[in-house]
Amino acid sequence: MSLTDQVLARIDATFDAAQQRWIDWLRIPSISAQPKHAADCRAAAEYACKELASLGFDAAVRETAGHPVVTAHHPGPGGAARHLLYYGHYDVQPADPLELWTSPPFEPTIVDGPHGKRVYARGAVDDKGQVQMWLSAFRAWFEETGTMPCRISVMIEGEEETGSVNFKPFVEANRAEFNQADIIVISDTGMWDVNTPAISTSLRGMVYMDVILKAASRDLHSGMYGGSALNPINALTHALGQLKNAEGRVMVPGYYDGVRDISTRQSNQWSALGFSEDKFLGDIGLTEHYGEKGRGALERLWARPTCDICGIWGGYSGPGTKTVIASEAGAKVSFRLVPGQDPNAVIAGFKAFMQARVPTDAKLVFTVHGQGQGLEIPVDSPFVQAAAAVLEQEYGKPAVMTGCGGSIPVVETFQTALGLDSLLMGFGLDDDQVHSPNEKFEVTCFRHGMRSHARLLGRLAAK
Amino acid sequence: MSLTDQVLARIDATFDAAQQRWIDWLRIPSISAQPKHAADCRAAAEYACKELASLGFDAAVRETAGHPVVTAHHPGPGGAARHLLYYGHYDVQPADPLELWTSPPFEPTIVDGPHGKRVYARGAVDDKGQVQMWLSAFRAWFEETGTMPCRISVMIEGEEETGSVNFKPFVEANRAEFNQADIIVISDTGMWDVNTPAISTSLRGMVYMDVILKAASRDLHSGMYGGSALNPINALTHALGQLKNAEGRVMVPGYYDGVRDISTRQSNQWSALGFSEDKFLGDIGLTEHYGEKGRGALERLWARPTCDICGIWGGYSGPGTKTVIASEAGAKVSFRLVPGQDPNAVIAGFKAFMQARVPTDAKLVFTVHGQGQGLEIPVDSPFVQAAAAVLEQEYGKPAVMTGCGGSIPVVETFQTALGLDSLLMGFGLDDDQVHSPNEKFEVTCFRHGMRSHARLLGRLAAK
Repeated sequence: MSLTDQVLARIDATFDAAQQRWIDWLRIPSISAQPKHAADCRAAAEYACKELASLGFDAAVRETAGHPVVTAHHPGPGGAARHLLYYGHYDVQPADPLELWTSPPFEPTIVDGPHGKRVYARGAVDDKGQVQMWLSAFRAWFEETGTMPCRISVMIEGEEETGSVNFKPFVEANRAEFNQADIIVISDTGMWDVNTPAISTSLRGMVYMDVILKAASRDLHSGMYGGSALNPINALTHALGQLKNAEGRVMVPGYYDGVRDISTRQSNQWSALGFSEDKFLGDIGLTEHYGEKGRGALERLWARPTCDICGIWGGYSGPGTKTVIASEAGAKVSFRLVPGQDPNAVIAGFKAFMQARVPTDAKLVFTVHGQGQGLEIPVDSPFVQAAAAVLEQEYGKPAVMTGCGGSIPVVETFQTALGLDSLLMGFGLDDDQVHSPNEKFEVTCFRHGMRSHARLLGRLAAK
Repeated sequence: MSLTDQVLARIDATFDAAQQRWIDWLRIPSISAQPKHAADCRAAAEYACKELASLGFDAAVRETAGHPVVTAHHPGPGGAARHLLYYGHYDVQPADPLELWTSPPFEPTIVDGPHGKRVYARGAVDDKGQVQMWLSAFRAWFEETGTMPCRISVMIEGEEETGSVNFKPFVEANRAEFNQADIIVISDTGMWDVNTPAISTSLRGMVYMDVILKAASRDLHSGMYGGSALNPINALTHALGQLKNAEGRVMVPGYYDGVRDISTRQSNQWSALGFSEDKFLGDIGLTEHYGEKGRGALERLWARPTCDICGIWGGYSGPGTKTVIASEAGAKVSFRLVPGQDPNAVIAGFKAFMQARVPTDAKLVFTVHGQGQGLEIPVDSPFVQAAAAVLEQEYGKPAVMTGCGGSIPVVETFQTALGLDSLLMGFGLDDDQVHSPNEKFEVTCFRHGMRSHARLLGRLAAK
């Protein structure tokens, strides 16, 4: 029995304890966007720090201008060939609208589903569940061998869901502590389906901005002022309503500058995956896509930039009527970017787009919450190849190389600040309801994820 | 000294008590739109009922499917020639955004201003303050003479701010009790300025609707679904953003059907008033109007239909970021109507307008909160003439005949259900911040309003 096989046997024998550690961590409502949860974010960081310290890591909760970062280092066995840097995040998205949850978001609930047990909770998969997979893989190696099979460093941040604003300067300020690693390992992406593993080899970047349109100095009676005064909601909808044209193209000036068409080879690979957009949309009650016309489904999801208004507000939204012209209205707008687009140019372009479409008296106030470039990961790296090999061992079928529509902006930071590529090996499913009510993670995915991480450590130790 | 002069002297001598009754009533947070304030609405009704009963009225709090209606009848002196029906409302608008109030909305606060003392409170003028003027005029007549100078009936409803949905059937169901009156007297409008009284001879009507656009069956991750799934906020802004064209015209099909241009005589009268739109807008921080191009200011405010989005909501509006595609988004839209427009046609037109501009998968849900036609009041009626005469006596200058941009939908109900015209003699000022934070009413307006109502009773008694 190989050492790796012994570790896998231990993972299976101690599975319940791993699941319990996962659930305990999920109970902490570490919502990074909401200041009232600052203490919860710290508690979630301390939970991870204590876990790593118990595995022989030199672990610490490190301060930033925002929520803290958990760091840890383990030298591995003497003369370890590989130095792996694991990244994850302990913060979660806000849980509202709360009334749509079938169980409380911070009381993890185990329910039977079509793939066996699943755990419902905010953060079940994104990203506490996925982080707990590799933490538990570490534990199995530690319990079996008394050490780690490779040299390992860890960074678990608390502001991924709010744009990693303070994490980036933290990485840059501590470059020398981390830039000797060979690769970053990240589990924050998804599988192709519950039986088919995947490695993500491209990531969309993001620009996320608030825009507030201010008009009169106070709220006005719509009877007394209607027909004369500027209405900020009418003006805001007028401008935002032009963000896309009838072809689904984003109308921000210069938006497609630098965007490259995908290669025929890429296109053929993705076509071969047999992705059914009809099913993808049918599962959420929709019948047709609203992206760019004339582009393939996976191309639109993985390799084309988008624009979505993530929130809008203004005036009276309570029951019944209030005949008011509000003094201001606002919206949150996200742009998913692909390699080649310059986030700063998109920010400037959106500002210009809005300014060109609002009337004289409208004062626009912009806030940039986060920005990151789209990225491509080299598929021929030894780490991607090693991951592909262990995933095939674990699942009995090859991993597919996919794009990822979502953004992990720190991947860009790791490239620019540390000069390191990332290995994106994730175990989420499309129906995990990430960022939605009733987020869940399949226990089978959690289990195979743990085992895959344990295998990866064993394989890289042997090199 | 005439009887009226004696009553006016009593009003002046007992002014503090009248002000106290006004303030006590304002302390009751009778917000009709918010179900949690149902008991407060009832308390405000009972306050008025008790007041009327103490003046010899046969007064009652009458049930409806919503908030109750206060009714009262007084036979007046034997053989009274005139039967006046007073209408007002005890409900108020919601007070939010609360943080913009300089004093709590339901703790009436007396402050010095450019016209002397003023009272800040939600409902200070709209409509508790204006109703209290005529209630206190009744009291002065009662204390001076032991009866009322005319036969008087009263209806004070509790749902004016939410469209009088239950009041209209109440009036229709009790037609015989009220339709013998000669005229409806209403104080819910404004003066020309603090020194110049006004009688409103036209009123805009209103249609107020919610529209909710439903898309996917749940909230979605904007990275995972962006580029494929319908975003309801993008779709809603796209449709609502087309409500007005570059000329300020409302683009709802058939919207201007039946709208008549004002006569040259009317136009000349209004021009002669010397209204400064620059000052009107400058006072609220704006520099130009956003109504229909090529129309005069008072024409736009009083005689042209408008469209204002009074509220909008969808997705995440908290601090920071949430990268979500919401499952639905909604808005509250008000249309101010002028005589000739059919509210039902406007409702149908708005539905068609939206349906024509949203994509296949968008499900639209409409709610009509209220509707009422625009109205014109005959200026040559003896009651308008009597009001003009007493206002000139009180202020020493003629009352101006104005339009009113706001809506009092029950005026239409009174015409259709009771066959009665209304006399709109109000004492608000443009800067009273009706429906806004820091609503106020000038004590001098309250005082002259009381005296004007007392004079009107005396004049009509003599006929």
